[in-house]
Amino acid sequence: MAGKKAIAVVAGVGPGTGSSIARKFGQHYPVIVLARNPANYNEVVETINSSGGHAIGLSTDVSDATAVSNAFTKITTELFPGSPIAAAIFNSGGGFVRKPFLELTTEEFEKGWEGQVKAAFLFSQAVLPLLLQGVEEKSEFPPSLIFTGTFPPPPLNPQLGATGSVRGSANFSVFASAKFGLRALSQSLAREFGPKGVHVAHVIVDGVIDIPRTKGYVFEHEDAKLSPDAIADSYWFLHTQPRTTFAYELDLRPYVEKW
Amino acid sequence: MAGKKAIAVVAGVGPGTGSSIARKFGQHYPVIVLARNPANYNEVVETINSSGGHAIGLSTDVSDATAVSNAFTKITTELFPGSPIAAAIFNSGGGFVRKPFLELTTEEFEKGWEGQVKAAFLFSQAVLPLLLQGVEEKSEFPPSLIFTGTFPPPPLNPQLGATGSVRGSANFSVFASAKFGLRALSQSLAREFGPKGVHVAHVIVDGVIDIPRTKGYVFEHEDAKLSPDAIADSYWFLHTQPRTTFAYELDLRPYVEKW
Amino acid sequence: MAGKKAIAVVAGVGPGTGSSIARKFGQHYPVIVLARNPANYNEVVETINSSGGHAIGLSTDVSDATAVSNAFTKITTELFPGSPIAAAIFNSGGGFVRKPFLELTTEEFEKGWEGQVKAAFLFSQAVLPLLLQGVEEKSEFPPSLIFTGTFPPPPLNPQLGATGSVRGSANFSVFASAKFGLRALSQSLAREFGPKGVHVAHVIVDGVIDIPRTKGYVFEHEDAKLSPDAIADSYWFLHTQPRTTFAYELDLRPYVEKW
Amino acid sequence: MAGKKAIAVVAGVGPGTGSSIARKFGQHYPVIVLARNPANYNEVVETINSSGGHAIGLSTDVSDATAVSNAFTKITTELFPGSPIAAAIFNSGGGFVRKPFLELTTEEFEKGWEGQVKAAFLFSQAVLPLLLQGVEEKSEFPPSLIFTGTFPPPPLNPQLGATGSVRGSANFSVFASAKFGLRALSQSLAREFGPKGVHVAHVIVDGVIDIPRTKGYVFEHEDAKLSPDAIADSYWFLHTQPRTTFAYELDLRPYVEKW
Repeated sequence: MAGKKAIAVVAGVGPGTGSSIARKFGQHYPVIVLARNPANYNEVVETINSSGGHAIGLSTDVSDATAVSNAFTKITTELFPGSPIAAAIFNSGGGFVRKPFLELTTEEFEKGWEGQVKAAFLFSQAVLPLLLQGVEEKSEFPPSLIFTGTFPPPPLNPQLGATGSVRGSANFSVFASAKFGLRALSQSLAREFGPKGVHVAHVIVDGVIDIPRTKGYVFEHEDAKLSPDAIADSYWFLHTQPRTTFAYELDLRPYVEKW
Repeated sequence: MAGKKAIAVVAGVGPGTGSSIARKFGQHYPVIVLARNPANYNEVVETINSSGGHAIGLSTDVSDATAVSNAFTKITTELFPGSPIAAAIFNSGGGFVRKPFLELTTEEFEKGWEGQVKAAFLFSQAVLPLLLQGVEEKSEFPPSLIFTGTFPPPPLNPQLGATGSVRGSANFSVFASAKFGLRALSQSLAREFGPKGVHVAHVIVDGVIDIPRTKGYVFEHEDAKLSPDAIADSYWFLHTQPRTTFAYELDLRPYVEKW
Repeated sequence: MAGKKAIAVVAGVGPGTGSSIARKFGQHYPVIVLARNPANYNEVVETINSSGGHAIGLSTDVSDATAVSNAFTKITTELFPGSPIAAAIFNSGGGFVRKPFLELTTEEFEKGWEGQVKAAFLFSQAVLPLLLQGVEEKSEFPPSLIFTGTFPPPPLNPQLGATGSVRGSANFSVFASAKFGLRALSQSLAREFGPKGVHVAHVIVDGVIDIPRTKGYVFEHEDAKLSPDAIADSYWFLHTQPRTTFAYELDLRPYVEKW
Repeated sequence: MAGKKAIAVVAGVGPGTGSSIARKFGQHYPVIVLARNPANYNEVVETINSSGGHAIGLSTDVSDATAVSNAFTKITTELFPGSPIAAAIFNSGGGFVRKPFLELTTEEFEKGWEGQVKAAFLFSQAVLPLLLQGVEEKSEFPPSLIFTGTFPPPPLNPQLGATGSVRGSANFSVFASAKFGLRALSQSLAREFGPKGVHVAHVIVDGVIDIPRTKGYVFEHEDAKLSPDAIADSYWFLHTQPRTTFAYELDLRPYVEKW
């Protein structure tokens, strides 16, 4: 390995999966976390920095081209000039509504796409050149671009169990069309950048994640919610796979989840 | 059956599949054809009208909310006030580019989504109330909303054979993410409106269609291109299925196509 | 078209889908029906013959190599020497048990495979040479080999709605592994014999079929059971598609079916 | 954890993936390896035993009910009486032929099913009670039953790249129908035994594995073959996932593999 120390970038960090992923990758790399609202990343940034790591939060709306451009200009010129990216995680949620189709506004429908597919497009265009740089500089692990599929949006009844990335359920047209689109993008990128040495992967998270917001969801069985730390372990596992043996897709769910 | 005569609406009509579908449904229903450029529908409108049918073309950009609204206001107040819709076909293509991912502009990426997913959203919101009216008025066949998946875009080498609706190939991120999104939307609508009596279906067209533009594509075997009339027959078959026995998805390809 | 009149062969005929298919194809072709128990086909044979068609029943266990060989020797030497096959339908059900996995006997598991996958193998080997003969003799429609996927087995609670051909549900290991295997076989044959002009298709029947045996299944909605005649119409539609525009897979379900 | 030390069992061990898996799990558990021919496991047994582990080979045809029964009687009464199973890996290959469909014998077709689906059935029935025992005794990691999907059979041209577990290619009817059947079985077991605490998973190995037998396969790119040790690391990763966060399916392929 030559050149500057590689970094990790996590887009979409709140008090759940994103924070767990940032902490996990923060044990190995300096980590940039992106979220619109600094309140979403302040705690994890502090945790990482106070435990010997190096984390920086950037307030960024990843569905906004200018905002993404500004964030990466800052990263590449001010914060970590010359550094390749070791791992880029697209974990953005948000913006979804679940409604009978005829009650949706065009803006609500559009927002679902912007928050997922357009944001993933902008993020991927920003990180891929720096991931390819990592390939050239013979990074320790194959540079990785990992997308989070199906993320149960907050207002949902957890019992609904809609697997948005591979199933379009009734009343879920916003969610499903955005998540199918995101999966398509990730597949296309895996086929284009895999042979160039970048490990592109898509993780389907199917179930309720055990985060502060879902405290109130009570299930019949114990351990019925996904552990954010175990999800983060899966992302790290994907990141450390050698290029002889890449996984493209991983589906994660609690043992009692219906699927 | 009560009320006014039901009509058919076909969005995305050029000198290929759309025209064949319009002619097929025009044998049974008055048919409205929508395309941005009247040059794309003038011929088929004339053909239908001169052979005893009734066709009307409306110049409409289906990815534009105002344009769609104007077209349907015209249909419901001027052209066919009180008529239910018997069949609505979303067959819109266009707007795709195929490029290495890092060469795409945000606008190019966005346009793919707008031309497919957003347009299908706008079209579906406009036609579904009139399809549901058909259910209420006990139409001859279950009112149908049919989407065309994977439509090989013009600039493509036909040899590439990318099945965009279910496979995201390298360099096809615009196409694949739009077509996956369209399929997700159609699935969600099938699950929401099927139980209400509307037959929502998605047709995967996999291969080169035999239209004027593909004259130059020569294959080793004869009959190696899809017949637009045979595609139209498949749409008509779907439309005439009774509600006891709906097909949601149909994949069409020439006998020699690799898949 | 040259040579002897083409025939149709339907394997798996009881008082439901198989009979409807035989009647439908019997309007156009002499039809051979195969079932182990003559009681299953006697009525349909009589109906076809008394309405101007020509049907012959052969008592045959299609999972038994010798029985299949005997039936086809009889067809090709005695009944219709020199005739090509226009359409061969594999519609065999039966033999399934649904049980907790650890209560299954090896024999029960094996029987599921024999009744579906092995039987389909034997049937396909018997009919394909005669379907290819139809291609050579330029049959009216492309010779067709159609398989029935997911067939809800009799002892099941219809509410379970397991889609065996594409989903392996709990306690359905016999059913799912046989139906996945059948679908794999049909796909492999579609890719091998499609380019030779034989139309191989797989139909997923998802829901309760409206037959004498399911009289007692009462649903909240009317028309909630699949119509065997509408299923037969779908098979006939597949059979009449030109080779430019083959469908490989069709999923059929009632409008109110959950999927 | 209470009771006797848990063991691992690997069915299908040759000088490739099976041996790597045995070595990996042998670092943590006593490991039983099953293969018909002792020549296939002698080396790995010796390697494990000489490096401080504990391995035992049992010559067993896993497609034979009596042989499987004998092996497990020996395990539970002689070798490790009272021990639960921590991990059971079904990695059996073999028995496949690739041929034009009409040249296959019934025996060849049957053998493909026996070697995969029936063998997996017998193995699963033998190990599941001992995996459930592990759940009861609160094993360190959730007891795991992992199946290897698509295993490119020896006589194949590696360029063919057929993904048997999810795609039925021309001339691959034996392989595809067996691998689809195996995947169906694993899905059904995942849905039945997951909620009981057993982690059932299915790994799709897509590409040529770097083993002695494939030495002669030369690719344009380096690292174009799957590493058996990296495959084994993936199995171990699956085994150590907590029950809050199980993956059911993982697809592994070299970075340059076409898919």
